[in-house]
Amino acid sequence: MDRSTEEAQTKEMDIRSLSSSHHHSQSERYIHKVGVPPKQNLFKEFRETLKETFFADDPLRPFKDRSRSQKFILGIQTIFPIFEWGRKYNLKKLRGDLIAGLTIASLCIPQDIGYAKLANLDPQYGLYSSFVPPLIYAFMGSSRDIAIGPVAVVSLLLGTMLQNELDPINEKAQYQRLAFTATFFAGITQVTLGFFRLGFLIDFLSHAAIVGFMGGAAVTIALQQLKGFLGIKKFTKKSDIISVMHSVVASAHHGWNWQTIAIGASFLSFLLFAKFIGKKNKKFFWVPAIAPLISVILSTFFVYITRADKQGVQIVKNIKKGINPSSVNEIYFSGDYLLKGFRIGVVAGMIGLTEAIAIGRTFAAMKDYQLDGNKEMVALGAMNVVGSMTSCYVATGSFSRSAVNFMAGCETAVSNIIMSCVVFLTLEFITPLFKYTPNAILASIIINAVIGLIDIGAATLLWKIDKFDFVACMGAFFGVVFSSVEIGLLIAVSISFAKILLQVTRPRTAILGKVPRTTVYRNIQQYPEATKVPGVLIVRVDSAIYFSNSNYVKERILRWLEDEEEEVKAATYQPRIQFLIVEMSPVTDIDTSGIHALEGLHRSLEKREVQLILANPGPVVMDKLHASSFTSLIGEDNIFLTVADAVSSCAPKLVEEQP
Amino acid sequence: MDRSTEEAQTKEMDIRSLSSSHHHSQSERYIHKVGVPPKQNLFKEFRETLKETFFADDPLRPFKDRSRSQKFILGIQTIFPIFEWGRKYNLKKLRGDLIAGLTIASLCIPQDIGYAKLANLDPQYGLYSSFVPPLIYAFMGSSRDIAIGPVAVVSLLLGTMLQNELDPINEKAQYQRLAFTATFFAGITQVTLGFFRLGFLIDFLSHAAIVGFMGGAAVTIALQQLKGFLGIKKFTKKSDIISVMHSVVASAHHGWNWQTIAIGASFLSFLLFAKFIGKKNKKFFWVPAIAPLISVILSTFFVYITRADKQGVQIVKNIKKGINPSSVNEIYFSGDYLLKGFRIGVVAGMIGLTEAIAIGRTFAAMKDYQLDGNKEMVALGAMNVVGSMTSCYVATGSFSRSAVNFMAGCETAVSNIIMSCVVFLTLEFITPLFKYTPNAILASIIINAVIGLIDIGAATLLWKIDKFDFVACMGAFFGVVFSSVEIGLLIAVSISFAKILLQVTRPRTAILGKVPRTTVYRNIQQYPEATKVPGVLIVRVDSAIYFSNSNYVKERILRWLEDEEEEVKAATYQPRIQFLIVEMSPVTDIDTSGIHALEGLHRSLEKREVQLILANPGPVVMDKLHASSFTSLIGEDNIFLTVADAVSSCAPKLVEEQP
Repeated sequence: MDRSTEEAQTKEMDIRSLSSSHHHSQSERYIHKVGVPPKQNLFKEFRETLKETFFADDPLRPFKDRSRSQKFILGIQTIFPIFEWGRKYNLKKLRGDLIAGLTIASLCIPQDIGYAKLANLDPQYGLYSSFVPPLIYAFMGSSRDIAIGPVAVVSLLLGTMLQNELDPINEKAQYQRLAFTATFFAGITQVTLGFFRLGFLIDFLSHAAIVGFMGGAAVTIALQQLKGFLGIKKFTKKSDIISVMHSVVASAHHGWNWQTIAIGASFLSFLLFAKFIGKKNKKFFWVPAIAPLISVILSTFFVYITRADKQGVQIVKNIKKGINPSSVNEIYFSGDYLLKGFRIGVVAGMIGLTEAIAIGRTFAAMKDYQLDGNKEMVALGAMNVVGSMTSCYVATGSFSRSAVNFMAGCETAVSNIIMSCVVFLTLEFITPLFKYTPNAILASIIINAVIGLIDIGAATLLWKIDKFDFVACMGAFFGVVFSSVEIGLLIAVSISFAKILLQVTRPRTAILGKVPRTTVYRNIQQYPEATKVPGVLIVRVDSAIYFSNSNYVKERILRWLEDEEEEVKAATYQPRIQFLIVEMSPVTDIDTSGIHALEGLHRSLEKREVQLILANPGPVVMDKLHASSFTSLIGEDNIFLTVADAVSSCAPKLVEEQP
Repeated sequence: MDRSTEEAQTKEMDIRSLSSSHHHSQSERYIHKVGVPPKQNLFKEFRETLKETFFADDPLRPFKDRSRSQKFILGIQTIFPIFEWGRKYNLKKLRGDLIAGLTIASLCIPQDIGYAKLANLDPQYGLYSSFVPPLIYAFMGSSRDIAIGPVAVVSLLLGTMLQNELDPINEKAQYQRLAFTATFFAGITQVTLGFFRLGFLIDFLSHAAIVGFMGGAAVTIALQQLKGFLGIKKFTKKSDIISVMHSVVASAHHGWNWQTIAIGASFLSFLLFAKFIGKKNKKFFWVPAIAPLISVILSTFFVYITRADKQGVQIVKNIKKGINPSSVNEIYFSGDYLLKGFRIGVVAGMIGLTEAIAIGRTFAAMKDYQLDGNKEMVALGAMNVVGSMTSCYVATGSFSRSAVNFMAGCETAVSNIIMSCVVFLTLEFITPLFKYTPNAILASIIINAVIGLIDIGAATLLWKIDKFDFVACMGAFFGVVFSSVEIGLLIAVSISFAKILLQVTRPRTAILGKVPRTTVYRNIQQYPEATKVPGVLIVRVDSAIYFSNSNYVKERILRWLEDEEEEVKAATYQPRIQFLIVEMSPVTDIDTSGIHALEGLHRSLEKREVQLILANPGPVVMDKLHASSFTSLIGEDNIFLTVADAVSSCAPKLVEEQP
């Protein structure tokens, strides 16, 4: 029954729509006027723009219509989501988290020691940063899969930028203090962005730019590891490929240590093989996850027994025992270094955020839960602020460890707590055992870890889909590899911006034709079967008309007209162009410059005796056209709901004017 | 006959289009597939993007299919348009140009002397800049109405920026040299922008920002004139309103000179009255044009007779006789000042361009001729480069003098040559007579001239049309008035950019409904009579989907869906939402981040058992969706030409699924 009613209804509508869209040249009864939206209160309009910009996700929605105590509890739960999900926590979830936590702990310990070296810090600082920050995050974060700790790219970035200011060996104490200062401001930056709901700023680093930047950073990091891997003592401090290769080649004769190379190469093969097994069969995901720890244990034991360190194999030597000391008094809150720390912190904080949010979103999409980017930023920021006071450097979400965490079946952020506990035990009891761990192993582990950041598949896809994105990607990549991480980052951001600006400066325009057997008008380049309407030129403008493109749009439309007029002259039996219909559907907004351009267009057309007609201006545009009395300039009856309506109103007038 | 044939044709089409758009749920024969544009050659695509960006106006078009000698002549005519229009020059045109030239000469002489003071230069430099640059422009420029010479805003900007580097009184020689250096680089900047076809960069200063900036500059300039107008000797060097008012008030007791005030006030009244007459009746346009010269003559004569300069009335004193000396050797081509001059020159050059191009376009539109912005820039740049070598400072098109030129009936750039000749005669013979000209008159003339730059009407219109534009305008205005021209400029540019970025970060989205008795789907906020289709949610995205907004777009669409689902739950007899149609007409482009977002959207929808359907993706989008195999992910048959097609394909499926 339902169905037949609806069919009947549909038919009725069809008949009505037929009479409206096709016969109104005879009877204009059914022509729909273009709606002018009801005039909005200025304050309301302003508030709504503000809301869409900063509170697009409506974070206060659950607080509506609640009692005061409920609001308080909700508030606590909003800041510390652990009080929300913690109440539903059970043993089954703990099992998943326990396994995941132990797995990522075994992966993070060797990585942490290596990453600390990338940041030119002592190895224990890497472990410190895997102890406090994950704990804080577990209480405040809302991602269930992210694994917190130091990561390769941020460590490299921090190391490079700090090194530009201070020497990490001769000015070790100040260097460390500046590192904590930068970490503090990285945290402050993150909290600020989240609190003021400016999280969308990190979206300005495009996916393409990130792919290139990460790939470049991975190559740079891998190259840096050649120092440990080849056992070179004199190594450049610069990170660009040319300086590094120069160092490597220069030391080839007597700077390389074959024992080191032998250890490094064999364990790197082992790690790569483990990775291969893990990729082959998802069940064995734990093989590549624990391979690094096994390598560390085996190689340390080997060096201890053979005393290979006497043969020139460099080892970690001393790594401080005990948990994080306080570093509150080490942060520079005044002086020159305050500003330097701030600048470095802002950059490192932003990059850290970009990485963490990207990871969080990826896994949230996989498990289909919502992630509030701004809340995440506050959590990440708070964790870095606390971290900076407990001898940690910038921590964030790690790509590789989060993936392992996910595959190991983590359920909640408790896996981070487990990892943190293992790191605590390591710091308290096991660190002295790392004394004989060869640096070459750490280099192998880092090389193995960062190889995963070079995403050739993604780059190929960029090339296939969007050439401009590919250029941005390559720009970032080569910028990092041939110059420095900062330059690469700068290139990536600049190209991303340039793309946006290009889009708004040179919007697309298209000539429309009628798709045969429909009343639909479409781009004749996309639909070659579409036919132009004689005497009428239909142009679509594919962007908001703003100051940045208003002149271009006007001149482009006039140029379309000139081309068309030439064509018409050449052909026989063609009426001259008498109507110019501008399809405004994609013109989502217009500003005063845009209206001036339309006025200019109207004036130029008047001189050529061509009538300007607008089709389907949107609500905002309609509102502004009214406010500026442009509608009365071209005549209200020259604005139509659809191109089809406009064409059918032109057609009869056109015929009369013909010779 | 023609008419009846066409009507018959139209009817036939109507019938066919009826069967296509309404009955294809029964027979799918007539459904039009969304066109995938033919794959373009990469190089061709790249070349076309480049052409649209830099050669949108196709400047080489006339060169096509010409012989070599013709090309040479055309080339000369392109660089020196005078050889083109000069051949058609006749006595009738000369008459118009002669009158216009004499009129603007009488206006420019007193203005030049005043503007030179704004730039902290000796009065003769203003006259120099009205002698050489207009001559060069007459040969190279293509605007017929622009009047070239020093202008108030650029003089002020140059004066302020130079003063920050050097003291114009104690370091006079270096100050002048730096001024020529800045002028040289202003010219180089202009030529470069024009030659590399980067002229679109000046479009980034929006109309709104210019209105505010000009208004602010006018207020600042007028305030500066209080020094000459009130005869104050100790005056601040800062240009912000607070410092200036402080100077004025502090000197109120014994710093003011009543004779000066009397002269200034009476002649200012005279000038304002002349302006009023000119506005009242367009025929008397020459009254305000020659009033300044008359004031100068009368007041100079008055001071000479009464020897009022002995009473403390400040006079011009010495103004050097003779035409421009060479200044080639004064330009700094090395050292610290090279860089400073370059920086100042770039800013002054850009502002000069903005003003000249705006004027050129306005008058070109009035007389309906085309103006090639990039060619204009080369002409303006060349004129400033030559100017910098002949003791001129930055010249550009003047708003007030160009308007007078236009009204006086100028025909070609010959009016600039006439003006230049008059200035030449003035420099050679008359300058000594300016000795007794009181400064107060110059102040009155400048105040009178800059009042016209405060465009309250334009600001009111901005408020009415676009609140954001108004904010940009006021930001620039108050930035200039309360801080400095540079800060105001910075604010204006920043706000303009922020607007563009906001647009691409938070694009509009809208829910569409069916406009009754049509097959047209429109924004239900704009067309309250439009009705939603049960079980189907139709969303339109109003912007290209790029990295900067892809996440927002995805989340916004999901939020629309949630809102709709809640509404459906609350209502009875409503089928749950089973189809989400995204109207893609305004989505002019998509990048890899955008495609990722669509994939994410598709995945989220799958989990909710909602089918994603796309309507009318454009050629570029379709191309990229294909390249990324997104089309096969959602199924080629879920992409439709129109929303109506998509809805009519959903409808039958929907019914079957109902309980």
